[in-house]
Amino acid sequence: MATDSVVEGLRARVRELEEELNRVRRHETHRAKIGKMSAEVVDSNPYSRLMALKRMGIVQDYEKIRTYTVAVVGVGGVGSVTAEMLTRCGIGKLLLFDYDKVELANMNRLFFQPHQAGLSKVEAAEHTLRNINPDVQFEVHNYNITTIDNFQHFMDRISKGGLQEGEPVDLVLSCVDNFEARMAINTACNELGQIWMESGVSENAVSGHIQLIKPGETACFACAPPLVVAANIDEKTLKREGVCAASLPTTMGVVAGILVQNVLKYLLHFGTVSYYLGYNAMQDFFPTMSMKPNPSCDDKYCRQQQEAYKLREASEPKPEVVAVEESPVVHEDNEWGIELVSEISEEELKDASGPVPELPEGITVAYTIPITKPTSGATVEDTDQSLEDLMAQMKKM
Amino acid sequence: MATDSVVEGLRARVRELEEELNRVRRHETHRAKIGKMSAEVVDSNPYSRLMALKRMGIVQDYEKIRTYTVAVVGVGGVGSVTAEMLTRCGIGKLLLFDYDKVELANMNRLFFQPHQAGLSKVEAAEHTLRNINPDVQFEVHNYNITTIDNFQHFMDRISKGGLQEGEPVDLVLSCVDNFEARMAINTACNELGQIWMESGVSENAVSGHIQLIKPGETACFACAPPLVVAANIDEKTLKREGVCAASLPTTMGVVAGILVQNVLKYLLHFGTVSYYLGYNAMQDFFPTMSMKPNPSCDDKYCRQQQEAYKLREASEPKPEVVAVEESPVVHEDNEWGIELVSEISEEELKDASGPVPELPEGITVAYTIPITKPTSGATVEDTDQSLEDLMAQMKKM
Repeated sequence: MATDSVVEGLRARVRELEEELNRVRRHETHRAKIGKMSAEVVDSNPYSRLMALKRMGIVQDYEKIRTYTVAVVGVGGVGSVTAEMLTRCGIGKLLLFDYDKVELANMNRLFFQPHQAGLSKVEAAEHTLRNINPDVQFEVHNYNITTIDNFQHFMDRISKGGLQEGEPVDLVLSCVDNFEARMAINTACNELGQIWMESGVSENAVSGHIQLIKPGETACFACAPPLVVAANIDEKTLKREGVCAASLPTTMGVVAGILVQNVLKYLLHFGTVSYYLGYNAMQDFFPTMSMKPNPSCDDKYCRQQQEAYKLREASEPKPEVVAVEESPVVHEDNEWGIELVSEISEEELKDASGPVPELPEGITVAYTIPITKPTSGATVEDTDQSLEDLMAQMKKM
Repeated sequence: MATDSVVEGLRARVRELEEELNRVRRHETHRAKIGKMSAEVVDSNPYSRLMALKRMGIVQDYEKIRTYTVAVVGVGGVGSVTAEMLTRCGIGKLLLFDYDKVELANMNRLFFQPHQAGLSKVEAAEHTLRNINPDVQFEVHNYNITTIDNFQHFMDRISKGGLQEGEPVDLVLSCVDNFEARMAINTACNELGQIWMESGVSENAVSGHIQLIKPGETACFACAPPLVVAANIDEKTLKREGVCAASLPTTMGVVAGILVQNVLKYLLHFGTVSYYLGYNAMQDFFPTMSMKPNPSCDDKYCRQQQEAYKLREASEPKPEVVAVEESPVVHEDNEWGIELVSEISEEELKDASGPVPELPEGITVAYTIPITKPTSGATVEDTDQSLEDLMAQMKKM
């Protein structure tokens, strides 16, 4: 009898330990779901610091964030941090797309941890993010969006995968690391009229950018070559065979930060939403600008969206958009001994790139296009090359 | 006999499960320590993307990062991400100082997770960071640096806690959220001649800054009131009783990113190290500047450091520092349809603040000082108030 109770006790202990181990392994959430965001200032309220934005006069209706769905395409150095920020902000629903696996070689960026090596990025990300905020809904897809079948499914999910099934997502974020995937997102968003934001980090890890694209209203990716912040680096260094790109958690963290900040400003209506914001880490230079669509863009859906936008504009009362001149910076010494630190020169930036269109200071194209006729007055419309030729050339570089 | 072996088997299973549970609970590192950083491009190399910075011509000797020690004071929204970035970059040694506990109310910022609620911030951070990179050495102190005893210990550790015990740390980073702690760091660094960087995020969560302080060479915190990026917000909103500050993972992620980027540029000698870099999230405005020390600073160690700096300058060949004028920004339309997006106006910024010294566009003081005599020509030297009076006044606000 004594032995039976010992066995019984040990069996109970094994069951207990197995359950505990499963719980710990699943990183089970240590907080319950929260039905309604509260502004109460207590240590146990994960939303108090966000709801305070209302009291501070920054955001009128912070809770509205729970009604929005964002799709993040690419869950790498920028996309994973982007998804984490949105999760911590309490976004309604996140769709994650990536086909890659976590590797130790990713450990120089934020988010993933060594014990996740070998897991798919979307699976590992969903696990961590659910633990951080169980109030967020997740839908993850472990595939490459550029293959024909997956592309159709991707289009289907961004047009129907909103918080209310059948509704489109509110925003698509491109956090991918290659031209093909960007073009796939561009194609899908042009066809669907889906507003999206693009992000990118240079292969030398010291510059990046974000861009807001409203089909028909701003230039799409097929309207003009992708623009990047000039990084003052010899492009030839980047293109050698068998060489991996450099990356830094700093640059990727900054790009994810300015991307999600732009998302919050766009969704929650505060501050000025940037159409393009660049980051040059070498000189701490952050250019902004906006770009109109190309009326003869090779993407027919882009041209259709441009027509539709013109019609909308004509029928709606248009708010005045004022182009404010930047005030000249004051350089005189003052009684506090303050001096401005020198920034990158226009010459340095121009040296870094081939023939480029006229662009604001500090911006250049991601790829330079071989010019076959005199540059003077050349516009996209004058070019003999089709977008397909251009893309084929770019891929070869 | 059968029962004995069953009991034995169950006991073995209990031991096995207990060990496994402990291992999982400790999040045991899934990678071994690495003796020497390698540039080999394989999935299992956590340093390949960092060592690629050498090949890209950005950093001459990336491995030198292993020889540096950085102290991070304050392991909150900015400090925790700062420590994580440095850990992933493979810094030699990190010293962490904080006296706070993790709360669910911190979950709207990156880094800490709900299951860590209740742990001390330094303990939770060390655990996560060791798991991410076991090559980094950690020394953590769970105390408030502003009490007399702790302040002495803090001074002792930053002057002797380097990678080689007895050597000073290479850099101190202030990631604290209050004036008293910043002043304590300022006092310690002035006395020790320790170079440090300060960081801050506004209470309305939409602006922040970083600042590099070289005792004797640049203004210290006692030379002038702390400067912040004007956020165009009514300061009275921020000062009500019983109201918590707002915070966003985006703003804090950007500030941590530009802080650690500045640390990497400073330690590894690439790009331009910023003396002051502000971030206004509402307008995506990033002002830079530098500030000379005040010859009649109230901190005697600051004045001593200024004398020492002058002597060093006089004896050393001085590299020419050129103040480059910013090129006026070109606003004309061009054939690519690019327009500059409007930025914050000088008027808007001035409206946001009280009487302030002459400062570059977009910068204002964190606190406005009541002026008791005519402002015209008033400098710090003219002021009747002692720093103690000033500090007492500031604390009351």
